[in-house]
Amino acid sequence: MSMPAHIGIIPDGNRRWALKNGMAKENGYNFGLKPGIELFKLCEKLGIKELTYYGFTTDNTKRPAPQTKAFTRACIEAVKILSKENASLLVVGNSDSPMFPKSLLPYTVRKKFGTGGIKINFLVNYGWEWDLSSVKNLGTTNRTSIMCNLNSSDITRIDLIIRWGGRRRLSGFLPVQSVYSDFYMIEDYWPDFKPEHLMQALKWYRHQDITLGG
Amino acid sequence: MSMPAHIGIIPDGNRRWALKNGMAKENGYNFGLKPGIELFKLCEKLGIKELTYYGFTTDNTKRPAPQTKAFTRACIEAVKILSKENASLLVVGNSDSPMFPKSLLPYTVRKKFGTGGIKINFLVNYGWEWDLSSVKNLGTTNRTSIMCNLNSSDITRIDLIIRWGGRRRLSGFLPVQSVYSDFYMIEDYWPDFKPEHLMQALKWYRHQDITLGG
Repeated sequence: MSMPAHIGIIPDGNRRWALKNGMAKENGYNFGLKPGIELFKLCEKLGIKELTYYGFTTDNTKRPAPQTKAFTRACIEAVKILSKENASLLVVGNSDSPMFPKSLLPYTVRKKFGTGGIKINFLVNYGWEWDLSSVKNLGTTNRTSIMCNLNSSDITRIDLIIRWGGRRRLSGFLPVQSVYSDFYMIEDYWPDFKPEHLMQALKWYRHQDITLGG
Repeated sequence: MSMPAHIGIIPDGNRRWALKNGMAKENGYNFGLKPGIELFKLCEKLGIKELTYYGFTTDNTKRPAPQTKAFTRACIEAVKILSKENASLLVVGNSDSPMFPKSLLPYTVRKKFGTGGIKINFLVNYGWEWDLSSVKNLGTTNRTSIMCNLNSSDITRIDLIIRWGGRRRLSGFLPVQSVYSDFYMIEDYWPDFKPEHLMQALKWYRHQDITLGG
């Protein structure tokens, strides 16, 4: 009967939600902002210690310009909203690339907002290849050493990953931190987030036998 | 409407199956051998190009001795059985460790058996930390370079991962090759394998929108 210390959030289905609601694909992302802050407040109440949001990836940046502009704007807005909460916030991603929004550069160093509280990691222009590109050949199989060498080294092992939008895949989400994660998939699209989604995921998680591969 | 080129198999639930059938936990592994060869023959018929079996991991070796002995024996036997088929077989895992069975050392170089055919990878004493320990700091985010530097570099990207035994996690299974994999979970324990399991997974996979993160 355990609570996850660290939850990973894959907020998928924004574009499909937009199409379903008669909008252009790129108009879906804005409707994902309210769910993001709602989820944060729920996790805060529940005492979750760390929360990682999958913003956008280096793969996503290959999409048509109206989409890349829209999801970049939504991520900037999401970080701004979260920085008004009590949280210790870090944006993680390839900030050397022109696809990384300049206005988020100050957030690539972890900052405490309000009274601190939940550790939030927000992935922006994140790529698994970028994450692993900093791993050195240490000639060691020491796990802590490997994790310390990731570009995402400030993000800890994830207990539970929740994905909205029906897909059953990681899509490049933090391959090392997710080696032992439990996956909970929700059919609804992310903009249709309901508090029950999180509660169902946590209820399911409590009945998993967590062995860390043992 | 696509077929996966490469399927990853996580044959979980052998111990729970044994308990359910009134046996000691360690007696379950032997009952996983027949499903393994059955699945292979089905994949051969269906034209699957590459198949990766999760044998045992460096995590698993921390279990009580009767279990580690039993699953090691079962893996040796499975490799022996597969080497009688038409396949190009490679055992992948940390062979520098005393937990790696000596009799499988000759298989750590890929070998063609019969007329060749399916590429089979069999993970034995595999650990994600061992796999990543060979990655060099190339100062590049080139994906091919990263994959070439893995200890499991001879294993390609996995399209579909099927896990038996109800768990929804990777348990350290090939973190890099599985970044874009679709996951199909089966409630039945591995020794209760039925051909329908594979057929259901393939049917489900055909309806997935494969984007490779895009």
